[in-house]
Amino acid sequence: MTIEPRTLRGLRDYLPVQMIARQEMIAAIREVYERYGFVPLDTPAIEAREILTGSQEDTGELKIFRFEDPDGRPAGLRFDLTVPLARVVAMNPELPMPFKRYHVAQVWRGDEPAPGRFREFMQFDIDIVGASSMTADTEIVAVMHDTMEALGITRFLIRLNNRKLLNTLVSLLGIDPFFTADVFRTLDKLEKTDPEQVRAKLTQAGPPGVDQKEVPADVRCIGLPEAVADRVMQFVSIRGSSDEVLVQLKSFFGGYVEATAGIRELEEIVSGLRAQGIPEEHFTIDLSVARGLGYYTGPVFETTLLDLPSYGSVFSGGRFDGLIGRFTGTDIPATGSSIGVDRLFAALDQLGLIKSLPSRTQVLVTVFDPKQIAIYQAIARELRQAGFNTDLYTGDGRIKGQFRYGDFQGIQIAVIAGPDELASDAVSVKDLRQAINQEGKQQLVPRAQLVSHIRSLLTRVVE
Amino acid sequence: MTIEPRTLRGLRDYLPVQMIARQEMIAAIREVYERYGFVPLDTPAIEAREILTGSQEDTGELKIFRFEDPDGRPAGLRFDLTVPLARVVAMNPELPMPFKRYHVAQVWRGDEPAPGRFREFMQFDIDIVGASSMTADTEIVAVMHDTMEALGITRFLIRLNNRKLLNTLVSLLGIDPFFTADVFRTLDKLEKTDPEQVRAKLTQAGPPGVDQKEVPADVRCIGLPEAVADRVMQFVSIRGSSDEVLVQLKSFFGGYVEATAGIRELEEIVSGLRAQGIPEEHFTIDLSVARGLGYYTGPVFETTLLDLPSYGSVFSGGRFDGLIGRFTGTDIPATGSSIGVDRLFAALDQLGLIKSLPSRTQVLVTVFDPKQIAIYQAIARELRQAGFNTDLYTGDGRIKGQFRYGDFQGIQIAVIAGPDELASDAVSVKDLRQAINQEGKQQLVPRAQLVSHIRSLLTRVVE
Repeated sequence: MTIEPRTLRGLRDYLPVQMIARQEMIAAIREVYERYGFVPLDTPAIEAREILTGSQEDTGELKIFRFEDPDGRPAGLRFDLTVPLARVVAMNPELPMPFKRYHVAQVWRGDEPAPGRFREFMQFDIDIVGASSMTADTEIVAVMHDTMEALGITRFLIRLNNRKLLNTLVSLLGIDPFFTADVFRTLDKLEKTDPEQVRAKLTQAGPPGVDQKEVPADVRCIGLPEAVADRVMQFVSIRGSSDEVLVQLKSFFGGYVEATAGIRELEEIVSGLRAQGIPEEHFTIDLSVARGLGYYTGPVFETTLLDLPSYGSVFSGGRFDGLIGRFTGTDIPATGSSIGVDRLFAALDQLGLIKSLPSRTQVLVTVFDPKQIAIYQAIARELRQAGFNTDLYTGDGRIKGQFRYGDFQGIQIAVIAGPDELASDAVSVKDLRQAINQEGKQQLVPRAQLVSHIRSLLTRVVE
Repeated sequence: MTIEPRTLRGLRDYLPVQMIARQEMIAAIREVYERYGFVPLDTPAIEAREILTGSQEDTGELKIFRFEDPDGRPAGLRFDLTVPLARVVAMNPELPMPFKRYHVAQVWRGDEPAPGRFREFMQFDIDIVGASSMTADTEIVAVMHDTMEALGITRFLIRLNNRKLLNTLVSLLGIDPFFTADVFRTLDKLEKTDPEQVRAKLTQAGPPGVDQKEVPADVRCIGLPEAVADRVMQFVSIRGSSDEVLVQLKSFFGGYVEATAGIRELEEIVSGLRAQGIPEEHFTIDLSVARGLGYYTGPVFETTLLDLPSYGSVFSGGRFDGLIGRFTGTDIPATGSSIGVDRLFAALDQLGLIKSLPSRTQVLVTVFDPKQIAIYQAIARELRQAGFNTDLYTGDGRIKGQFRYGDFQGIQIAVIAGPDELASDAVSVKDLRQAINQEGKQQLVPRAQLVSHIRSLLTRVVE
């Protein structure tokens, strides 16, 4: 009885050609993160249930994989890397502050799968914990900028906003705090949706007699009065250069304390980015950026690919000064940002920025005559010791099939030692990349010169 | 209401100092694997339940984390990386064969936690699929050898055996096949247990009237007759050089076909290892190596640290020609080996082979006067663009506290720009590593020479 080989819905494998490209992408990101002084952290995939749920306002947005651990304790798979960070900081008060960590790992959410949306996906986060100054937020945005550049992306825009402005707006307009998160999530859609539709969604009332507070978040009606919705839409339509928007915001809010603080924070970030030489074309203040998650308290950031706006934000975050306090009882300021690795990978691929290789192998030692295997093994050993990534053919194909195998793997060079070569203490070296379209260039090389010959072939290619 | 920050039993975090060391270890292993022509693969942590259970004989040995996915389908977390490999091969018949993949990822088992035994741990596997020749097994053992060397381990022993010998032994002695796995697991204990105890475990009979086939594996009694146990113990006590053991095996088994095949396989591996220049001191034929897992069919491998035998095998594997057939219906030969990353890491640590760093950061730009933050930000940018891993201080500590922070992070160099420095368009560069025990060496450097000055300081250290 055979078992049908399959992956469950929303899950997928990364085959070698994709994995090598993803490894390169992750290495490029990590290099930037370390350039900024971030250090790595890892945490278990499994967390105690209350760590996961208690840290998330119960908006019904996040579907956690739930189970019990072998001791019968409620558990679940992490749905992001921020909550585990908060837990680690609370458990390790000796960590030197500010604590600047990066974390690249899988997270799991039970959402309905869609093209590009999986139930297991990788995030690559940076956060600075224990720093309340806008220097920290500026660093985060600068890393975001440098990361995008390191990945070869030139047309991108980092969009900045501040929850303090949104909070003031909601409170000024007398919007029921229960619906704050709904309003924010609706505004987040402005990036991809017509403003009229967004406005309609804000004003739409539910059927009479239904308490919308009892309705699940994804179908809840906000029902703002027309005048209130007008004012919200007027706010998000404030646009212009960073300096122009800051001026308009001051006049929009007058002297409200929280809004004034939010405006000053944005001013500090903007001037910090200028000091760090971040080009003006790569950041903007966009008042529609709200970020759905409940835990943000100050600046928020999103990153849009100008050539692929439908991908939404590929690198997002913000300040969350209250989250760690849920575990410690005392607030510890924190700010950070997160890459959705799989989504960004898909976007890079679409932009033609993914260079994919089937392997990193450079040389294939073929097996012309299995009886002579000891000679091929010795050749392989010699090439490996010389530093070449070398495959010794282990299958039972004939020599033509072995060349095809090498070609599939993107291997450049094949080494052949048949009876003629062995008789003259030599080997043949064949360029597999030429073999496909034309007669493969093959050269007889004295055995003693094999390493130096291959080194010269590989060097030539690099040039 | 605060939530108590905690990890569930058997789970743990990797803080930065451990993570950096683990990253270095994984990079060293990966380099060897790629040197041998292996390519990376990744699979989801979550597999359909029958993929996990159907592929494992129900010995009760493996405790899987079980749950249902959001569609209500039985699911679980992978307990090794071999079963997912078999599934991937079955799902992707277009993969070029032999398929040589590596996979580094977490696996989960619900075993009772113990010192060094966790419920979530990392494995780093290599396997060659689609190759029946012993060239493949030889490659696996050679990679194991080179990996141990790359990690700086000199005193280790790779122990080889062959399931075909054990199978013949069990069948020759008329041992009930039901108890084969129990016999093998008992023999595996010979590495760490007194032979008399092992023998006693083999012969121990259960209480009368209890069918031992109904008893869970971990408390099951095998109850071999004394004469049979003697013969088993005689077999495992065949010792000597590889050549001596091979000779003795031939006389022990006479001409039994399966045993003869197993002996020939061991001969081929031994001569292959010699051809690849693997020193004789690093491998041996040890007939007590059985490997508990049910799926092995030929050669099996274990790796013992001679200075830490209590760690058991840190790098183990074998040939499993039948596993993939459970998904495809047609057997596909395969062989491979797996590192228990966390256990090997702990062993390396105990051997003093782990060089741990708190960060990879080289330079700390201090904030002497927060009002001058734009200048510090510009300095940080300049240093990062020059390629130095640079931290810009984001906390609110005073300068002494900032030095302490840099020292905690293992940062060598601090850059200071107070009013005096700023007045003369210069910066002070301080060697933080000297600052701890003696008066920190501090030098005034013209701002324009900062990068070249720091480069010379860092170069000196590398020398």
